[in-house]
Amino acid sequence: MPMSPSTPDPAGVSIGVGMVGHAFMGAVHAHAWRSVHRFFDVPLVPRLAVLGGRDPERTKAAAAKQGWPDVETDWATLVARDDVGIVDICTPGDSHAEIALAALAAGKHVLCEKPLANSVAEAEEMAAAAERAAANGQRAMVGFNYRRVPAIALARKMVAEGRLGTIRQVRAAYLQDWLADPATPMTWRLRRDKAGSGALGDIAAHAVDTAQFVLGDRISGVSAMTETFVRERPLSWEPGSALGEVDVDDCAVFLARFAGGAVATFEATRFALGRKNALRLEINGSRGSLAFDFESMNELSFYDGDDDPAEAGFRRILVTEPDHPYVGAWWPPGHLLGYEHTFTHEIADFLTAIGEQRDPEPGFADGLQVQRVLHAVEESAGNGTSWVGVSMSTERVIDA
Amino acid sequence: MPMSPSTPDPAGVSIGVGMVGHAFMGAVHAHAWRSVHRFFDVPLVPRLAVLGGRDPERTKAAAAKQGWPDVETDWATLVARDDVGIVDICTPGDSHAEIALAALAAGKHVLCEKPLANSVAEAEEMAAAAERAAANGQRAMVGFNYRRVPAIALARKMVAEGRLGTIRQVRAAYLQDWLADPATPMTWRLRRDKAGSGALGDIAAHAVDTAQFVLGDRISGVSAMTETFVRERPLSWEPGSALGEVDVDDCAVFLARFAGGAVATFEATRFALGRKNALRLEINGSRGSLAFDFESMNELSFYDGDDDPAEAGFRRILVTEPDHPYVGAWWPPGHLLGYEHTFTHEIADFLTAIGEQRDPEPGFADGLQVQRVLHAVEESAGNGTSWVGVSMSTERVIDA
Amino acid sequence: MPMSPSTPDPAGVSIGVGMVGHAFMGAVHAHAWRSVHRFFDVPLVPRLAVLGGRDPERTKAAAAKQGWPDVETDWATLVARDDVGIVDICTPGDSHAEIALAALAAGKHVLCEKPLANSVAEAEEMAAAAERAAANGQRAMVGFNYRRVPAIALARKMVAEGRLGTIRQVRAAYLQDWLADPATPMTWRLRRDKAGSGALGDIAAHAVDTAQFVLGDRISGVSAMTETFVRERPLSWEPGSALGEVDVDDCAVFLARFAGGAVATFEATRFALGRKNALRLEINGSRGSLAFDFESMNELSFYDGDDDPAEAGFRRILVTEPDHPYVGAWWPPGHLLGYEHTFTHEIADFLTAIGEQRDPEPGFADGLQVQRVLHAVEESAGNGTSWVGVSMSTERVIDA
Amino acid sequence: MPMSPSTPDPAGVSIGVGMVGHAFMGAVHAHAWRSVHRFFDVPLVPRLAVLGGRDPERTKAAAAKQGWPDVETDWATLVARDDVGIVDICTPGDSHAEIALAALAAGKHVLCEKPLANSVAEAEEMAAAAERAAANGQRAMVGFNYRRVPAIALARKMVAEGRLGTIRQVRAAYLQDWLADPATPMTWRLRRDKAGSGALGDIAAHAVDTAQFVLGDRISGVSAMTETFVRERPLSWEPGSALGEVDVDDCAVFLARFAGGAVATFEATRFALGRKNALRLEINGSRGSLAFDFESMNELSFYDGDDDPAEAGFRRILVTEPDHPYVGAWWPPGHLLGYEHTFTHEIADFLTAIGEQRDPEPGFADGLQVQRVLHAVEESAGNGTSWVGVSMSTERVIDA
Repeated sequence: MPMSPSTPDPAGVSIGVGMVGHAFMGAVHAHAWRSVHRFFDVPLVPRLAVLGGRDPERTKAAAAKQGWPDVETDWATLVARDDVGIVDICTPGDSHAEIALAALAAGKHVLCEKPLANSVAEAEEMAAAAERAAANGQRAMVGFNYRRVPAIALARKMVAEGRLGTIRQVRAAYLQDWLADPATPMTWRLRRDKAGSGALGDIAAHAVDTAQFVLGDRISGVSAMTETFVRERPLSWEPGSALGEVDVDDCAVFLARFAGGAVATFEATRFALGRKNALRLEINGSRGSLAFDFESMNELSFYDGDDDPAEAGFRRILVTEPDHPYVGAWWPPGHLLGYEHTFTHEIADFLTAIGEQRDPEPGFADGLQVQRVLHAVEESAGNGTSWVGVSMSTERVIDA
Repeated sequence: MPMSPSTPDPAGVSIGVGMVGHAFMGAVHAHAWRSVHRFFDVPLVPRLAVLGGRDPERTKAAAAKQGWPDVETDWATLVARDDVGIVDICTPGDSHAEIALAALAAGKHVLCEKPLANSVAEAEEMAAAAERAAANGQRAMVGFNYRRVPAIALARKMVAEGRLGTIRQVRAAYLQDWLADPATPMTWRLRRDKAGSGALGDIAAHAVDTAQFVLGDRISGVSAMTETFVRERPLSWEPGSALGEVDVDDCAVFLARFAGGAVATFEATRFALGRKNALRLEINGSRGSLAFDFESMNELSFYDGDDDPAEAGFRRILVTEPDHPYVGAWWPPGHLLGYEHTFTHEIADFLTAIGEQRDPEPGFADGLQVQRVLHAVEESAGNGTSWVGVSMSTERVIDA
Repeated sequence: MPMSPSTPDPAGVSIGVGMVGHAFMGAVHAHAWRSVHRFFDVPLVPRLAVLGGRDPERTKAAAAKQGWPDVETDWATLVARDDVGIVDICTPGDSHAEIALAALAAGKHVLCEKPLANSVAEAEEMAAAAERAAANGQRAMVGFNYRRVPAIALARKMVAEGRLGTIRQVRAAYLQDWLADPATPMTWRLRRDKAGSGALGDIAAHAVDTAQFVLGDRISGVSAMTETFVRERPLSWEPGSALGEVDVDDCAVFLARFAGGAVATFEATRFALGRKNALRLEINGSRGSLAFDFESMNELSFYDGDDDPAEAGFRRILVTEPDHPYVGAWWPPGHLLGYEHTFTHEIADFLTAIGEQRDPEPGFADGLQVQRVLHAVEESAGNGTSWVGVSMSTERVIDA
Repeated sequence: MPMSPSTPDPAGVSIGVGMVGHAFMGAVHAHAWRSVHRFFDVPLVPRLAVLGGRDPERTKAAAAKQGWPDVETDWATLVARDDVGIVDICTPGDSHAEIALAALAAGKHVLCEKPLANSVAEAEEMAAAAERAAANGQRAMVGFNYRRVPAIALARKMVAEGRLGTIRQVRAAYLQDWLADPATPMTWRLRRDKAGSGALGDIAAHAVDTAQFVLGDRISGVSAMTETFVRERPLSWEPGSALGEVDVDDCAVFLARFAGGAVATFEATRFALGRKNALRLEINGSRGSLAFDFESMNELSFYDGDDDPAEAGFRRILVTEPDHPYVGAWWPPGHLLGYEHTFTHEIADFLTAIGEQRDPEPGFADGLQVQRVLHAVEESAGNGTSWVGVSMSTERVIDA
């Protein structure tokens, strides 16, 4: 592959990136693609090749702003281009499956935003395709970026090392408030045909993945309830705007069991006034406890049950030490990181997996498993909170 | 009634108190009985008359320490004494019903610790008896003391005044950790025959009452899961102690609906390492949100959705202003109150209701309603998280 | 001494208390005198004997409310009464010296509110008198109640045990806001002839004593600045009220050195809007750090420099464990204590010192030393922040 | 000027940047130069032209990593290059003056890291040179990046709009702990000849600039004390390393007055164990208060004195709303920003000032004024805390 003429390539090898979608997720992905090799010693240096988007003018403007030298308005053309080694999918969930399947078929590595798909069936097809492609050396990853918050990665490390002992209880929540006002207009995120679900796929998906990641365990069943507080919204901010129907959940709450026995509560809502992006996780084990809130994303609270009771208390660990996950690449202690860093870390891990010829985590099979949990939540909610098990099969699901 | 010879009586009227039980609850109640008229202008000044307890020596020692001039080892004798106008029941739940019924039958006012009883049937009988006794001018109250935390009383006031708008979501939890260590010995609180249930009756009862109180609404149904993490415990701290069986829940988690439509999650556990007495309540309405944690009991967090977005944020209200509920009786702003004050407030309210010849809140009917919620939780948990409705009858339950 | 007829005396010996002053300080002292033996095994049970106050009607009303069986309008008569063993001085600072000197001369034990006096000269006379009286078995104590916050007592213990190593830096502040509004009327606390000084004697005195207590060290010199933000205030809340002159400091800030070398900043103000009673102390040593804020008085923050850096962080110690100072007498973990408990603890310590025939801490000599610090602050502030040393003499100052 | 071949230039005009120094400050500046036009509509797009550093190999490696196509080992050559329009000075303080003066003489715009210089004399010369250059259309800015924390910019806006009323008190501190361990080796930051001073120039400079910026006011005098806790340190981490002398302050504390009358305390230390980068600012005005701590840099605490007292409390404003300063360029509410964003904002402001042909803030005159405050602190500390005034001349100091 040719070197990017403008980018000194510290590692000697680069790889072209084609990204589909250029809104919020596209902007933050682009920043990560531009920045990752400036901070991490990745085996492949990403070269921004082409940006995909339906509207030519808006896509060109986004490309200029984000630093893409070329655009395509047809994603099928984009995924087929020779200068594209990685396809990065930043579109709404309804197009994830077809783009990802085409990209894998075209021999590309694929990074796909979460939720993996809008249905379990799609996700199964994607996971199967990813497994086949893996045999071909292609790598597929799903974008659960919150795993890459240093505090969350530290939490996982501490759990894995046994610092918490046996995990007994989990309380997970993802609280936002941007829909609390009924005057806020419709968006594609409130349409089932585009987004698959509401708070569930948008943010509960993150809570589920993050909790499972930190525990190193999987949810085995759920009992759930969902609610739509505002069933009609104006189509725009303009006065007198026509109304559109909201056909997804505004909030989802559920009880869950982990395979290892832990008891959990989950909640996702976009109606919690004052909570802007509160992805919260609290875990109680037999030896200690952890607590996290993304609104203070550089902190992890840790209670060490082994401490002298007279001196014990939740420690506010500022996760900015050089020994903390990912942090060594950045600034000195106390110089905080932000939201966008989770994507830079994600892409560093992805490029490293590609370079090391191994499957990245979380793979499409992991995305499928989260999809199954979300599906079980909807099933239980539709069935009067009755218990719904989640398949614990960790086998990949080649079209049986 | 005669004046207490030792207590100057600012109001001119006193009433004798007989208390049954002298452990943790007894000690804090006694302090409240001794102190209430020093801070509140109550219509009746309590006069400590007699302390009841089974063991004569331990009861005498407690009486000397707590300030009771006399003791009885038979509660039936105590409730019948002429110098007793109020019977205060601080025993384990298995004796609440018989003592309360006898006290009401003897014409006394009754204050009964929570949970009201160990079963719905007992609670129904008690509520019916209390209703009959009310016709006779007797007052009966159940000891949900957390209603009397000034921050909680302020929260209720703000909800009632519409400061939060329509309540959409509630997250309630009561987290402790004193059972996290499997070496902690058995207590009556871990035996179904004494305590009725585990975390459920002990602390979930408080979470349910507090949430219902603040919302001014009632739970209409639940979906629940319970767990016992440690099924056998030593009978004492001594090495080699024999083991006893724990036959109650160590934790309970449940989804709930309020009659007014709010969606809620509840959790009660005594295994959340590092959380000592974290009764937490977070409420999201259409105009604002509130958050409370008893571990910072002098604070209430309030998000005013009407604030300019650029200046909006959760306010840490230090609930120590003279205008805050109960606070005017105490110290200047910033001079914190503690746990015991909730009992002083409770007793002030009880004495005021007696003096004003009206029913106090929460009455036995309220205690019964909480009991029904706890029962529904157990039923759902025993039934695979299936939805269990809670009777919304607010009628009192005279033996139909 | 005769037993109080109404108070069962668990220890067999009681002592009569005469208190002068019945406003805020009187009310909280009275509560402590009534309650101390209910929770602590004190060698002497206090018996409320007589309340002193200038206005007969208001004093009688306060006595009835607080539980004093008798009143005196002349403090000289009160201190001479045979049924008074302890004189408790809760008056403004201008009368501390004469009452305390008379009480000591009459052979009584004396508890005197802080600041000990309104001038160094008065304080020297008082300390000398207390030293002479000590030879006679009389005990004298000054009411720096914040030493008795369990978190502060724990902090001192940790410093004394070397958990912080060598203390390098201290930042202490006492922030209130009740004078922030210029419409708030005059009080005796704003008159130099009554209060001696403003924020300095009222609250800086506490900050100085608390910091010195926790460090186990003394201030050796200061550089200071004071300010009066509002120089005239109405005499009452009534519209059109005449104005009175404020001739004390509204705030005082100073740099200080401790004898052991620590560098410190101090601040006291009653103009910090939103801070209600924020007595803050933050200490950095070579092995660890501590932080405290009275607005969260049940918490102590501790950073252990010996912790693994990847897991280190300020611990929020909830100082409600049975092993924490004073806490064993009260409630289970997580059941918070309040402001008034500091007085109950203070009086328990005072009674214990009397019973054990040893000098209590802080004694009048300690009160004198704080007075010298306050005086040095005023001297430096009046002298363009020039450095003013504080005599480190720990000898008591018998009229040389 | 030619377009960067690789960077699509949304605005049509680019400007070459030459940066001297490539350590911590260089890395974060480079990231900002690469990123600024991806998020802000700057009138000039920066083009990374050349990196300067003394050591050829290390400079080349840094250039490859950071994205500089060329290097120079002689800064004089760098500042003279035709493809350099902006000189960015990221070296230790001892070379600021000569590089900046040469760059201005060469007709370049200059961004210089703080502190502006190592002495007032140097700073005066630089400010004079900047003023002369301004007449020539050249812009000079000093890198007080903390002004560009959105919460700090919001604080300034609120103060300027009168939301706090008259400012009465300020407490400012900058607390770090990276020197707490005496085994930490020497660095240039501990040598007076390189760094000018210790905590003073390194971090007190930030505290002074930030406080003055937020108040829109200037310090008129100080009383100060400094201390060096560890006077000798090993030259490296290797065991048995020789010792070097620390000849700068480890901590500095000072009282200050603002021209507008506010009373302030300042502290800077690198020995506050557990505080990693705690730049704290607390401001009390007649109408409200603000509090900030960089360790929670996305938050601003605001107490509105106009709120109903029963609902008033410090608001935790999450400064991530689109209307907050700088935030609109980034992510949705609750998606936090980090340390590096302050530099991106700084450079956006610098480029905008260049484009709009006006002087940026803070200019070299502002850097000089901070230098004068630091100098006054050293003078007072060397003179027994005696009061030292700070020239309030806002006139620029053309060589008189």
